[in-house]
Amino acid sequence: MPTVIPAIVAPSATEPMFTSTIERRDVGPKDVRIDIRWAGICHSDIHTVNGDWGAQHYPLTVGHEIAGTVAEVGSEVTKFAVGDRVGVGCMVNSCRECANCLAGEEQYCLNGMTGTYGARDVDGSITQGGYSTGVVVTEDFVLRVPEAIPFEKAAPLLCAGITTYSPLRHWNAGPGTRVAVVGLGGLGHMAVKIAHALGAEVTVLSRSLNKNDDALALGADHYFATEDPETFRELRGAFDLIINSVSAPIDVNAHLKLLALNGTLVNVGLPPEPLPVRVGNVINSRRSFAGSNIGGIAETQEMLDFCAEHAIAPEVEITSADQVNEAWARVLASDVRYRFVIDIDTLRS
Amino acid sequence: MPTVIPAIVAPSATEPMFTSTIERRDVGPKDVRIDIRWAGICHSDIHTVNGDWGAQHYPLTVGHEIAGTVAEVGSEVTKFAVGDRVGVGCMVNSCRECANCLAGEEQYCLNGMTGTYGARDVDGSITQGGYSTGVVVTEDFVLRVPEAIPFEKAAPLLCAGITTYSPLRHWNAGPGTRVAVVGLGGLGHMAVKIAHALGAEVTVLSRSLNKNDDALALGADHYFATEDPETFRELRGAFDLIINSVSAPIDVNAHLKLLALNGTLVNVGLPPEPLPVRVGNVINSRRSFAGSNIGGIAETQEMLDFCAEHAIAPEVEITSADQVNEAWARVLASDVRYRFVIDIDTLRS
Repeated sequence: MPTVIPAIVAPSATEPMFTSTIERRDVGPKDVRIDIRWAGICHSDIHTVNGDWGAQHYPLTVGHEIAGTVAEVGSEVTKFAVGDRVGVGCMVNSCRECANCLAGEEQYCLNGMTGTYGARDVDGSITQGGYSTGVVVTEDFVLRVPEAIPFEKAAPLLCAGITTYSPLRHWNAGPGTRVAVVGLGGLGHMAVKIAHALGAEVTVLSRSLNKNDDALALGADHYFATEDPETFRELRGAFDLIINSVSAPIDVNAHLKLLALNGTLVNVGLPPEPLPVRVGNVINSRRSFAGSNIGGIAETQEMLDFCAEHAIAPEVEITSADQVNEAWARVLASDVRYRFVIDIDTLRS
Repeated sequence: MPTVIPAIVAPSATEPMFTSTIERRDVGPKDVRIDIRWAGICHSDIHTVNGDWGAQHYPLTVGHEIAGTVAEVGSEVTKFAVGDRVGVGCMVNSCRECANCLAGEEQYCLNGMTGTYGARDVDGSITQGGYSTGVVVTEDFVLRVPEAIPFEKAAPLLCAGITTYSPLRHWNAGPGTRVAVVGLGGLGHMAVKIAHALGAEVTVLSRSLNKNDDALALGADHYFATEDPETFRELRGAFDLIINSVSAPIDVNAHLKLLALNGTLVNVGLPPEPLPVRVGNVINSRRSFAGSNIGGIAETQEMLDFCAEHAIAPEVEITSADQVNEAWARVLASDVRYRFVIDIDTLRS
């Protein structure tokens, strides 16, 4: 018998969310049932509900930055015990058979990984996300949250953290590399912290000078405003790696010219519109225009352990279940420094 | 006193070329004077004269695939002697001081390498290319043509050869990698030969099935027509590396989807129009949209030696000085298999 639990539900692409209930499946032999304590608000939640990335099944509960404690484990579960601090990120399953899954890159599953919300689950139902009091997930897609990470700050690591950690590692950010981070929001501010901890020289490129002091406090070495055309002249060829966290279109050609020989511009945000890349800008200096999608399960655990070791955590603003629509409006207005986290206990009362 | 020599000259962007004369500088201490024997016709020659890539100084002699013999050496020349078989490619100088030059990547000189034609030379004159009976070049930008390479086939290696060899090496084409070559022209047919010699599994993607037999004879393992939409369904995720040799716009998003995890689409052709890249197509499978420009001098010599060792040479059609305008028309009509080479002796008579 599925369990009925409280959840914040989006009834359609255009109406406000409200508190209601959803069903969770019974705990199978390899499943873990998690009491959710904290759920991060990701811009992707809003894009998904709005239908920006395709039609959705409504009502839908979103949220793929989940932190909580293990409440129940299936008979064959070996990795977790009741009471463990755990997390769930953007995916809850994958085929586990394809070349990419076998390589530990489940996020690129050739048969399509199962997203934490809005995806077709093994039982045919549509997955429902973390704006709810509980979730049932196969243990292989559950992460361990180290004690050193403050619990309310763990949730955003499961998307914003891994989405920036993975490309920084893949493209070898570290001592001697010059990394630029475009956009200082939920993802961008994590990119700054992680790139700094990896030893790279970090520059923030943000629209205005408003976030200059914040950026330096987060670990950036330099800060430039992209609304100033002089920035693009001064920084020509200045970076080995640019992490673009902006999910609206940027002037891609101006940004490509900021790359040095063999440099890569990695998109971790997903603007709906195609970006017009001038081929000369990638032929010059043998540049690459690339993308990266979250990270694999093993790499996500590695990221959590890295953040614990380096005392890295997101800057968060705690909100409550009855303030979620307002929080979304503030995310859209870039009015949060730097991630909202819903206190899920406010859904229980 | 500069020397006046026969050359094929383009008087403007719109008028036919004709035989006339150009001047060559005296041989300086470190210069080599080359009697040109063979000059390849590259699509870039046409783009440049047409003004597709920017305004030019006319009259202009183009040609950056040059093979000939050393006729005279300066007093400080150490690498070459009179009579040596040599080649000159797309550049005749660079600053030699910037980080990229010092790394042996003169083609990406941060101060701008000196193109073999249409560029501002050290003495302020505009460089003139290989459709002429001789050229004077600093010895550091002269290549040695191994005896094993038939002389009339050496010239196209200096552009078409290195332009495909460099990205194949940079992106590690070899045993176990799946390489697609888009377009089977001057560059594309060299990409097939070199990728095959490197041990990669090679697929040609050409518009129609017309060149199927040729492609297999050149060393391709597979051939698909891009005018058949089924090709893009069947080959989804099939390649680690795609070398796009087409300098007209392609359906970039359809081609990106042919890449497997961590795959790269490398452009070696330069369409004037920007290509609209959907960011989702690079985020999925962590793909890259990249470019590559010829190769450094040391790598060009390595390529020539590799071609000699593996008995690789372009397929050429010999033409004469008085047929150059017709040859250009046939290049534009894709009516050459696969590279025209001008017999420069026909300029001497």
